[in-house]
Amino acid sequence: MRDVLPEEMAVRDRALATILEVYGRHGFVRIETPAVEHLALLTRSDGGENEKLIFRILKRGEKLASARGVEELADLGLRFDLTVPLARYYAHNHARLPQPLKAIQVGPVWRAERPQHGRFRQFTQCDIDTLGVASEVAEIELILATGEALRALSLPDLTVRVNDRRVLGAVARHAGFEEARLASVFIAVDKLDKVGRAGVAAELEAAGHPQRAVERLLGLLAQAVEAGPGAPGAALARLQRLLGGEAEAAVWTALGRIIETAGAQAGPGMQVAFDPALARGMGYYTGPIFEVGCRGVPWSIAGGGRYDRMIGQLLGRDVPATGFSIGFERVVSLLLERGGAGRAEPERVALVFDEGTPHLARVLALAGELRESGRTVLLELRGRRPGRQFQDLAARGYGRIGVLREDGSLEWRGSGARADDGTVVESGGGA
Amino acid sequence: MRDVLPEEMAVRDRALATILEVYGRHGFVRIETPAVEHLALLTRSDGGENEKLIFRILKRGEKLASARGVEELADLGLRFDLTVPLARYYAHNHARLPQPLKAIQVGPVWRAERPQHGRFRQFTQCDIDTLGVASEVAEIELILATGEALRALSLPDLTVRVNDRRVLGAVARHAGFEEARLASVFIAVDKLDKVGRAGVAAELEAAGHPQRAVERLLGLLAQAVEAGPGAPGAALARLQRLLGGEAEAAVWTALGRIIETAGAQAGPGMQVAFDPALARGMGYYTGPIFEVGCRGVPWSIAGGGRYDRMIGQLLGRDVPATGFSIGFERVVSLLLERGGAGRAEPERVALVFDEGTPHLARVLALAGELRESGRTVLLELRGRRPGRQFQDLAARGYGRIGVLREDGSLEWRGSGARADDGTVVESGGGA
Repeated sequence: MRDVLPEEMAVRDRALATILEVYGRHGFVRIETPAVEHLALLTRSDGGENEKLIFRILKRGEKLASARGVEELADLGLRFDLTVPLARYYAHNHARLPQPLKAIQVGPVWRAERPQHGRFRQFTQCDIDTLGVASEVAEIELILATGEALRALSLPDLTVRVNDRRVLGAVARHAGFEEARLASVFIAVDKLDKVGRAGVAAELEAAGHPQRAVERLLGLLAQAVEAGPGAPGAALARLQRLLGGEAEAAVWTALGRIIETAGAQAGPGMQVAFDPALARGMGYYTGPIFEVGCRGVPWSIAGGGRYDRMIGQLLGRDVPATGFSIGFERVVSLLLERGGAGRAEPERVALVFDEGTPHLARVLALAGELRESGRTVLLELRGRRPGRQFQDLAARGYGRIGVLREDGSLEWRGSGARADDGTVVESGGGA
Repeated sequence: MRDVLPEEMAVRDRALATILEVYGRHGFVRIETPAVEHLALLTRSDGGENEKLIFRILKRGEKLASARGVEELADLGLRFDLTVPLARYYAHNHARLPQPLKAIQVGPVWRAERPQHGRFRQFTQCDIDTLGVASEVAEIELILATGEALRALSLPDLTVRVNDRRVLGAVARHAGFEEARLASVFIAVDKLDKVGRAGVAAELEAAGHPQRAVERLLGLLAQAVEAGPGAPGAALARLQRLLGGEAEAAVWTALGRIIETAGAQAGPGMQVAFDPALARGMGYYTGPIFEVGCRGVPWSIAGGGRYDRMIGQLLGRDVPATGFSIGFERVVSLLLERGGAGRAEPERVALVFDEGTPHLARVLALAGELRESGRTVLLELRGRRPGRQFQDLAARGYGRIGVLREDGSLEWRGSGARADDGTVVESGGGA
């Protein structure tokens, strides 16, 4: 886990404000769940590998004293994503929520991974989810809204890759995998980008899947991927001809409609493509899945999918659900490399004075007036090395510095040295 | 811990934006620390009663296997405030931070309290801290900035009560308490509002303090408080005459300057008063302390103080530090009672259509245009009971509803039914 310094925090705040503004215009509303959930919820959530990475919270008082064995020591855990808590939230609060619910969630999640370059054990996710809409119209909207948010951050050349778990399931069945073991196939295929074909094959064979099925699966995916770029409709149609019997016609129709409609509306700087090898790591996906890539970046910056059965496990009746999660840390690191998510900032003015000044009240009053007129005003005591102090202030964007003289007037330094306030302020010597 | 529903979340977001805007204009910059800290830091932090309320995180893997006894089971903990993490942050990052640092922190903190009315185990704090300024000018600025932020939320009749731990220490010494045991005296006196004189006396006597000292202390405080309201300068001067020898003259001067200068600049709707019985519960305070009350509200809505020795324990050299924390949950509950922190919202338009419509692309394009013009646009599939659906939408602020006809045109319902877009939109039947 790590600290965020002020310069990065300013970029994070501006990026988040931009994303929230776009999502808000699409009618999504913010909600919030606690960081801590019952461990039983988190460990029964089909969260794939992430379930192994939960930070567990020790029981307290008598409950701790009466715990027998390591397994009984913890009762709560830090959430590893925002989707599982959302399902619990919906099951708990649905009677008081808009129907369908279009929710925005922003917040930290925790995974007890070994720290590695660019990955942290606490990181922020930024999700939108539509609960209560079975139609692929929901996916089209998620893709367009997320694309618009990412484009508003000036991220160049976005590609949204789309697949459907049921299509990937059809490929796997066609290759000869057992229906009951498809979840482990998806988790392995999800690592294709990271570990390559040989790595995926090794994981699948180590898990006891037949070698022949592994070879056929990887062959089918390679073949379909090659046909992919540029002609999503054609690639989809060919795969459907090959596997049609393995998945319902409606699945293919919906996937085609998502890719075609979202692609046509995506606007400049954003493509929507069919990616038959896209798998996503979570166990809970049931339908369309998607990931966003950005030119020149080896990892995806957003991802999501449909999880129609998760809420049913908590509520007792299924509620269709689909969501898109922005990898906020990755987006921020891109923005930092590229020089920030530029928004206009108010002018910054520093007022510098000696600690024991009898004119403190006048300085405070002037600061108040300058803030009223929209400026950021920093009060600073004069340091032992004023020259260096003024340099530091200028480096932090305080281009205008007013130094209090003994008589209560101000000497202005730096750019735009004249103040528009006639009472205490005097124009004076430059830097 | 609890879920936040969309209506409350909108109030929270607006309140936070207002507070951050005011603090930003005062030159404070946002920073962030992780929610999780090393347990050793949290338990050695002089955090008073809060140290008993830490949620502890179970060790993982080999470290857990080799733990001997309950005390070794946990290595991390959830922060119980934002001040202890800030001290660690400063000690860790000071070379890369502006000097002095004026920091804004907003985030959740956790305390394993028994849930009770209006108190939660996860709650948000909103702090500003000035690190590196020994002068009481820092306190004056904290008080004025926080007062301005709270007034910007239209909270009525604010009173900032101010005291100094060294003045309270002088009162306690004068009453006959041992110097080495003053910390427990402060923690007990802090509960005066909650448990009354008898409760405080019982706690102090149970802790083994001499009965005579307890009686003198409570007598002195009652006497000083009675003299307090309306004439802070006079009350302060009288207490100084009584106790002068027990605290340095500079302490009294600084306290007087805070109360007088902040009081004079506070503006309408805010008073600054001397409260000799103000104690604050944390062990780490070393100088001026303050709390904000609001008319008609029995608990304080913000509080803080100077903690000049905390950073030294981590960094090896003392760094003067003082901070003010807004009890964000309490502020939000006040705003919810009073009808929100009003800001203008964009116009809301809902577009309603049948799932299988061949005109989806046109609807999406129109939605995009309406959003471009600053509106919030919600897409909704037509439900089985459209009348009720339209009522629900209107209740959520969607006063304009466009319903897609089979021919691709729109029928507008609700207020302002004419659209300013001639292509797809047609004016038509009212609700």
